[in-house]
Amino acid sequence: MRILPFAFAVVFGCWAQSFEGQASSQTDAAALSLMPVPASVTPGSGQFLVTGQFSVTLAGFSEPRLLRARQRFMDTLGRETGIPFFPDAPGATGGMEVNTMGPSAAVQELGEDESYHLEVTSQGIRLSAPNPLGAMHGLQTVLQLVHVTPQGFAMPAVTIDDKPRFPWRGLMIDSGRHFMPLPVVLRNLDAMEAVKLNVMHWHLSEDQGFRVESKVFPLLQQKGSDGLFYTQEEIRRTIEYARDRGIRVVPEFDMPGHATAWFVGYPNLASGKGPYQIERHWGVFDPAMDPTRESTFQFLNTFFGEMTALFPDHYFHVGGDECNGKEWDASPRIQAFMKQHGLKDDAALQAYFSGRVQKLVAARHKIMEGWDEVLQPDTPKDVVIQSWRGRDSLLAAAQRGYRGLLSNGYYIDLNQPAAEHYLVDPIGDIGDKLTAEQKASILGGEATMWSEFTTGEIVDSRIWPRTAAIAERFWSPESVRDVESMYRRMAITGRKLEAYGITSKATSEFMLERMSGDQNPVALRVLASVVQPPRGYTRGGLKDYTSLTPLNSLVDAVPPESETGREFGLLCERIAAGNASPADWQRAHNWLMLWRDNDAHLQPLLGQSEITAELIPVSMSVRQTAEIGLRTLDLLRETGTFPTASSQAKDLAFLADAQKPQAALLQMVAPGVETLVKAEKLAGGSEPR
Amino acid sequence: MRILPFAFAVVFGCWAQSFEGQASSQTDAAALSLMPVPASVTPGSGQFLVTGQFSVTLAGFSEPRLLRARQRFMDTLGRETGIPFFPDAPGATGGMEVNTMGPSAAVQELGEDESYHLEVTSQGIRLSAPNPLGAMHGLQTVLQLVHVTPQGFAMPAVTIDDKPRFPWRGLMIDSGRHFMPLPVVLRNLDAMEAVKLNVMHWHLSEDQGFRVESKVFPLLQQKGSDGLFYTQEEIRRTIEYARDRGIRVVPEFDMPGHATAWFVGYPNLASGKGPYQIERHWGVFDPAMDPTRESTFQFLNTFFGEMTALFPDHYFHVGGDECNGKEWDASPRIQAFMKQHGLKDDAALQAYFSGRVQKLVAARHKIMEGWDEVLQPDTPKDVVIQSWRGRDSLLAAAQRGYRGLLSNGYYIDLNQPAAEHYLVDPIGDIGDKLTAEQKASILGGEATMWSEFTTGEIVDSRIWPRTAAIAERFWSPESVRDVESMYRRMAITGRKLEAYGITSKATSEFMLERMSGDQNPVALRVLASVVQPPRGYTRGGLKDYTSLTPLNSLVDAVPPESETGREFGLLCERIAAGNASPADWQRAHNWLMLWRDNDAHLQPLLGQSEITAELIPVSMSVRQTAEIGLRTLDLLRETGTFPTASSQAKDLAFLADAQKPQAALLQMVAPGVETLVKAEKLAGGSEPR
Repeated sequence: MRILPFAFAVVFGCWAQSFEGQASSQTDAAALSLMPVPASVTPGSGQFLVTGQFSVTLAGFSEPRLLRARQRFMDTLGRETGIPFFPDAPGATGGMEVNTMGPSAAVQELGEDESYHLEVTSQGIRLSAPNPLGAMHGLQTVLQLVHVTPQGFAMPAVTIDDKPRFPWRGLMIDSGRHFMPLPVVLRNLDAMEAVKLNVMHWHLSEDQGFRVESKVFPLLQQKGSDGLFYTQEEIRRTIEYARDRGIRVVPEFDMPGHATAWFVGYPNLASGKGPYQIERHWGVFDPAMDPTRESTFQFLNTFFGEMTALFPDHYFHVGGDECNGKEWDASPRIQAFMKQHGLKDDAALQAYFSGRVQKLVAARHKIMEGWDEVLQPDTPKDVVIQSWRGRDSLLAAAQRGYRGLLSNGYYIDLNQPAAEHYLVDPIGDIGDKLTAEQKASILGGEATMWSEFTTGEIVDSRIWPRTAAIAERFWSPESVRDVESMYRRMAITGRKLEAYGITSKATSEFMLERMSGDQNPVALRVLASVVQPPRGYTRGGLKDYTSLTPLNSLVDAVPPESETGREFGLLCERIAAGNASPADWQRAHNWLMLWRDNDAHLQPLLGQSEITAELIPVSMSVRQTAEIGLRTLDLLRETGTFPTASSQAKDLAFLADAQKPQAALLQMVAPGVETLVKAEKLAGGSEPR
Repeated sequence: MRILPFAFAVVFGCWAQSFEGQASSQTDAAALSLMPVPASVTPGSGQFLVTGQFSVTLAGFSEPRLLRARQRFMDTLGRETGIPFFPDAPGATGGMEVNTMGPSAAVQELGEDESYHLEVTSQGIRLSAPNPLGAMHGLQTVLQLVHVTPQGFAMPAVTIDDKPRFPWRGLMIDSGRHFMPLPVVLRNLDAMEAVKLNVMHWHLSEDQGFRVESKVFPLLQQKGSDGLFYTQEEIRRTIEYARDRGIRVVPEFDMPGHATAWFVGYPNLASGKGPYQIERHWGVFDPAMDPTRESTFQFLNTFFGEMTALFPDHYFHVGGDECNGKEWDASPRIQAFMKQHGLKDDAALQAYFSGRVQKLVAARHKIMEGWDEVLQPDTPKDVVIQSWRGRDSLLAAAQRGYRGLLSNGYYIDLNQPAAEHYLVDPIGDIGDKLTAEQKASILGGEATMWSEFTTGEIVDSRIWPRTAAIAERFWSPESVRDVESMYRRMAITGRKLEAYGITSKATSEFMLERMSGDQNPVALRVLASVVQPPRGYTRGGLKDYTSLTPLNSLVDAVPPESETGREFGLLCERIAAGNASPADWQRAHNWLMLWRDNDAHLQPLLGQSEITAELIPVSMSVRQTAEIGLRTLDLLRETGTFPTASSQAKDLAFLADAQKPQAALLQMVAPGVETLVKAEKLAGGSEPR
């Protein structure tokens, strides 16, 4: 009989790499799979076994939040292990003590002590911290230490002294462009806690939607949200939920641009004539608040009064980015105002607006935060600058004495490899140009999850696990920069996050089934494993996306970075450099066969669903690429020769074409095969004969 | 190079069968994949396309519940399709009208009209119903009609007239033995709605736990629940949630036996001396309420007052099952009471108890429901008998004029094939012995999810999708009995239920990863696909289970019925009967190779986790079984001969052994291979040469 050449072993091989090497050694921090890596780790000997009799005692300072943290810890430990814990039942033997010295601030403050000290021995676990923030971080470290062993679930003996490098470690969630339902926000707070992030920056208003209930100006949400907004009760609940996890909630109300949704209900706030509609497209739009009317500032003053009371954090973000000034330019009244007040251009008018806004914010006892654009010559020194433009902008601000946050480099919506984000440092090479004090003014950074191309359904897979790598950048020592270690630990962290309720994997699988209808999704899954979205906002410019466009295609279902594609690329590099093992050659061959032959299984199905029809050329391109790969691999290995120049040129031309986006997807087999075609070594590392 | 003989195509083959044939024909009700099958279906021509402009208009009677049902419908449709709907945005074109004639009862009643009429044409959808119950059922049918086509998501044109066969279609959830957290209960209500079940029977007290907050007798939950109970606010929320889905909530407080947890806080209720502890083992235990003291009935009277106010349903379940009477036998005081009142045995004493309890329940204007045992000579005629003992018991009750429900045959905790439950009819062959009126007294049935071997984590996979088959039995015409059609539609329904929040598949995958630690779970997944739990409560008697035993092993992670095992069995039957196609032979061969070779991948991993170590002999048994299968298959096909008698005897002896439980698992390759070894036809259906 014919053995079908789909090597199932390929699937084994495909996974094995991301899982292997784990249990081998626990002599350093990275080997423990902790993420973020703690400041200091000293391995001990032996391990602590987790049994159903395990329980946690709280000592020292206590508060309801710590009791809830303990309960949450036990619940998560139960999910991680499947062990039922009855901490109040007779027979519980304890095992862990958490000693908290004192309280943290009533409203969590920037720069509070977040350190903890943890000792795990075979006899028990002792965690101590100056305040509940450190205690909660320590609990998360303990959960990450748990793994299954031949003796059962256990934690390795270890002593950890830990504290963060930066005090502001944020994730920005954009609920403005696509609304993020409350459960999505809450489970992302769970995941943030797991990787020790401490600020949720909540982008709450946009051209496409105003997302908070205002009782003072109810038309904001009534006319500006399509009914998709958070009630004040939900906001309060979210803030409480975040505080329970050591996370501050900083709201952002973007102005004077990015504010079309406000104007649907309150057109007089705008500089143009109106009427306004909720914006359905993506980009930078003309509508802007009118800085020339006192009524604008009266409105904002009242609005700030309501919102600063709702959001207890000391910082209040007013946006300030990307106002194109076109409505100002088009208004004779505004032009007259500018002339009258000596405001020479739109930037000057925006500076005037920002200054007025800053005073209103300060009058509410809040510190204003804004994007790069809010920094003007006379900006008060306590204003915090969040840089979307880049580190130079941050450098300039720090040198002028402003505190800043880096977001440029952490735009997780742009589909960059996790390694690129990971290697961006909030200080890095600008450190040399700063005094110690100026360095300290760089508070940290924020990953930004802009939501043009994400919905509540898929946002988890856009944020996680990649943001765990960014969280490590913000928390761990600057020297922690090993990319391969990061990818290995990020994969493990990703699996743990699913136990916290993050749906990255489950949603991807669900979407593949949805795309397939009642067809078998297995072949689609093979294709899905080797494609990823192109970088940036254009998606290859292949479709005109609006907020009404369904995000239910393959590009929406796959992670921003193809793990299989990345591993295949590394494999091909080893082959091309003559460093590949026989197993590497075998795996590359099996993978290429799988991808080549998958197309025949998939093609008959793709046309049966409108959503998958666009994948017909993508699957074909993967097949053709795999054919080139197989041919090249056989040449290198079996004939011991390189491709002829003409064959190489032809293949490279095809592969260059194959690396262009199709169906808003990049197929990630082609880069590896290109490496093979350009190889300079043969099997066994020899030169050609 | 060596092509590894793991045929990936096997995985394709493994899935394809359950997915195929779907889109082929929509000329009958079953082909629409509806579950339960409606009473009457008339296919139309064309289809209705679902776009982002789709919206639903409500006409006729309206109430907040219908508005919420519409919102839920749109939310689910959004999950099913990935299409964002903005029903209130300009441009919405409608497409569907729901016309509700009038209200349903304020407290949902047994026997209310649940019918609806549905017309789908290419132009639009019209749903009409006498009341919101029918309207909500119709909405669920519409959701089941949606599937992806080359034109997009669509519903086939069709006219449906539908109503249930039985008025009582229940699922019993046992929160007593293992507590079921509130989110678990709520998502199961979502799933119940999807398949038109209308009663959640909530088993709330047991030897192992008392699960409701009592404000009058707070020691019930404080001492009897390990802190795992529902607050009254949560109960009210659940009832409201169920009512929103057309589901009644019938509480059960089991007495006089199965009540140990009550006695921990209130030992005077019991017949023995105490003190009592929460029971940690499974089974039937001695503690029982004391029927001889007036204080017992005073307690119950007060308790019923509180609970009948909390639970608005007209029916109130008081259990009554499995009281072994041992505490009564051991008490001289109780023995004296029995003599004094002429109660000749324990059954008589329990009848006395039930009679007193029934009067207390009736005084609260509720109708008592109980298990078989509550039926006594002078039981009032309105009492409803739920039969765990069997249909004979139900027959006897009906002949005496009692209304009854069947649960025997629907014990979904017993790991029977779905087909067995499906083919049990609440009336069936006892119908001949009943008058029309008596027949009508058989109200329906309930699937019972006893929770010795399930936790909140895994209960979804125990209930779903199998309970959808039972729901069809209760709703659809008696003649709907095609098992293969049921399995096909149940698989589709199972996938849809995941979109409703049911976690059967996601949890199974998560558990396999947890068992594997940081190892690759792929090989474990292959083993998982061909094993299932043994029938009944013993799990092969291999372990002493208590409520403290972790349910985190492979037996807990796999569904009660191996779909792959079932399909392989059917395949082997076709082969053995000479009806197999060449593709069947190929698939059997590929499958057997996969299972044979999987062991080599899996063995090195199994010992690395305490949870998987017990699987070492299971995986080996699968390998050896597959070897026999391959040898036999090759013999039948290639040499055109049957096994010799001695070889056959030896193989059958091995296979008989291989079908015994190991690690509380049955491996489901062996039954199919046994069929092959006993085959009486060769490839192509010929006789041996």
